[in-house]
Amino acid sequence: MGPVPAVAAIRLAVRTALADHQPGDLVLVACSGGADSLALACATAFVAPRLGLRCGGVSVDHGLQDGSPERAAEVVALLRRRGLDPVGSVAVTVGRAGGPEAAARTARYEALDHFAERYGARCVLLGHTRDDQAETVLLGLARGSGARSLAGMPAVFGPGGRYRRPLLGLPRAATVEACAAEGVQPWLDPHNADPAYTRSRVRHRLLPELAEVLGPGMPEALARTARMLREDTEALDEWAAREYPACEHAEGGLDARRLAELPTAVRRRVIRLAALRSGAPAGTLAASHIEAVDALVTGWRGQGPLQLPGSVEVRRTNGRLAFGASTPPARPAPTRPELTGATSP
Amino acid sequence: MGPVPAVAAIRLAVRTALADHQPGDLVLVACSGGADSLALACATAFVAPRLGLRCGGVSVDHGLQDGSPERAAEVVALLRRRGLDPVGSVAVTVGRAGGPEAAARTARYEALDHFAERYGARCVLLGHTRDDQAETVLLGLARGSGARSLAGMPAVFGPGGRYRRPLLGLPRAATVEACAAEGVQPWLDPHNADPAYTRSRVRHRLLPELAEVLGPGMPEALARTARMLREDTEALDEWAAREYPACEHAEGGLDARRLAELPTAVRRRVIRLAALRSGAPAGTLAASHIEAVDALVTGWRGQGPLQLPGSVEVRRTNGRLAFGASTPPARPAPTRPELTGATSP
Repeated sequence: MGPVPAVAAIRLAVRTALADHQPGDLVLVACSGGADSLALACATAFVAPRLGLRCGGVSVDHGLQDGSPERAAEVVALLRRRGLDPVGSVAVTVGRAGGPEAAARTARYEALDHFAERYGARCVLLGHTRDDQAETVLLGLARGSGARSLAGMPAVFGPGGRYRRPLLGLPRAATVEACAAEGVQPWLDPHNADPAYTRSRVRHRLLPELAEVLGPGMPEALARTARMLREDTEALDEWAAREYPACEHAEGGLDARRLAELPTAVRRRVIRLAALRSGAPAGTLAASHIEAVDALVTGWRGQGPLQLPGSVEVRRTNGRLAFGASTPPARPAPTRPELTGATSP
Repeated sequence: MGPVPAVAAIRLAVRTALADHQPGDLVLVACSGGADSLALACATAFVAPRLGLRCGGVSVDHGLQDGSPERAAEVVALLRRRGLDPVGSVAVTVGRAGGPEAAARTARYEALDHFAERYGARCVLLGHTRDDQAETVLLGLARGSGARSLAGMPAVFGPGGRYRRPLLGLPRAATVEACAAEGVQPWLDPHNADPAYTRSRVRHRLLPELAEVLGPGMPEALARTARMLREDTEALDEWAAREYPACEHAEGGLDARRLAELPTAVRRRVIRLAALRSGAPAGTLAASHIEAVDALVTGWRGQGPLQLPGSVEVRRTNGRLAFGASTPPARPAPTRPELTGATSP
């Protein structure tokens, strides 16, 4: 008798995500102890040896809740019992930059990068499901920043495609079923039910309401939309990158006349590229900023200089958009994650 | 003392929408008697003569509710009192194709086209607001068909830019305020509050919930998203149209090898174009159909032919995607709207 359908679907998704790996490669699973990452760890522990791969695991302790070190230790012990090796937990210090959720994310990836490099891992698997993707799309909708914020989480990202999300096409319910079938007890993060968190309100109030008003296929529709908008954004970013050199002005910055010849979507992406290259941080550069700079091209009536995030100033002079630093940008010192409990060097 | 802010904002929006008109041109306002189109009619009656334009109005009677002919006659009388001329109502017969909302829309535009052509109108103004746009984006989200279904309603469309929506940037509340200030009594369509209609549920349940969970700026964020995705779609459609000739196969259809070189978003748009040109109707051609055809390019393993809406069959043979009619498509006979109550020939 084969595995239950949920387990089979998760194993197939993991197998597909690891198709480009070579025998001997190390795969790490980032595991919080929740149903999604626990089901992912169990599936990867099963699939990896059959592909000739090694499988390890890492638990991130954000230090944000009472008892989180103990829980990280439990996750490590569980992963070890399931045969993962190396297994470790990393404790991170969450800063404040960009709000609590963004700060936790930044700290988490720094720690995971560090752990992956220490063990020479080929990739790190993350347990986000189709429901997480739907929530991310809705949160992006609230930002109103177009395709880039609606494109959700990528299936593959990071240096050399290090991070992968094999479960983006599967519902969260499948991971709960798989945990039950594998006989592991997932941990229920109280943050996930805390209405103080926007994502929790999206999960527990908005998605059920969307499904009731617009139909039960909403998480799937949102995830499909995210995938299509990601493809759109990739194509348009490619177009903008190709046009960029021709839009550069001989004296630096961009040539307003050249920009004016491009379709709006491409012109604004060229402007965004120039702003990023001048030091504006991607996270805080909003559609409204880009639209304001675009008005120097399409609605020019002698406006004064504009201020972008990261102390970047844009002004138009003699048909040229000049991007300059209004004051030197302050850089925060990088934080170093602390490694604990690793089983091997 | 000037007009109240809502009236001033609506007049400015109308003035902007008519900026390309010539003295003597006739502008029609499509008026249901609801707050949005009534406020639009009052503003246009004020603005048009000051731009040297003529202003008329048309009320569409869908015949779907008891008393709708009487209501259409009341709207005609009201528009006439506000000085619009010519004024008329058109009674339409709503079919069933594509569901009740789509059928009513098709019938409405046929009738409006006919009325505009009869009077030689330069344009027809429609009263859709930012809130209507937000609802349209959410309905598009449920379809999960990417940027095209999320791009909402265009501000300008139809032959020669006939149809215009000056109020897309303004909240519905502004039209209610304007009607009060103008001393006109808007009609409350019971359909708008009837939970049997998906749009009504989106308006009365989903948008308030979205605002509560994600913040009060949601209608604006959704409308901005729609605008950005429309720009994206226009740029990508332009790219696809430019690549199309190079993708055509010498023996007809598309060249799979050429297609495979394009970015996913562009390749799928070229495929969509070919399907449309082969007779697949735009309204029923879904993202899933295009993805299935795309799999003949990117996931070719000898699959059989595919059936698209409109009895279009696609098969791959010798590196060529051939689009053919599997059976002759049935065409419904065009319906002719009936004109009543027009004041001048």
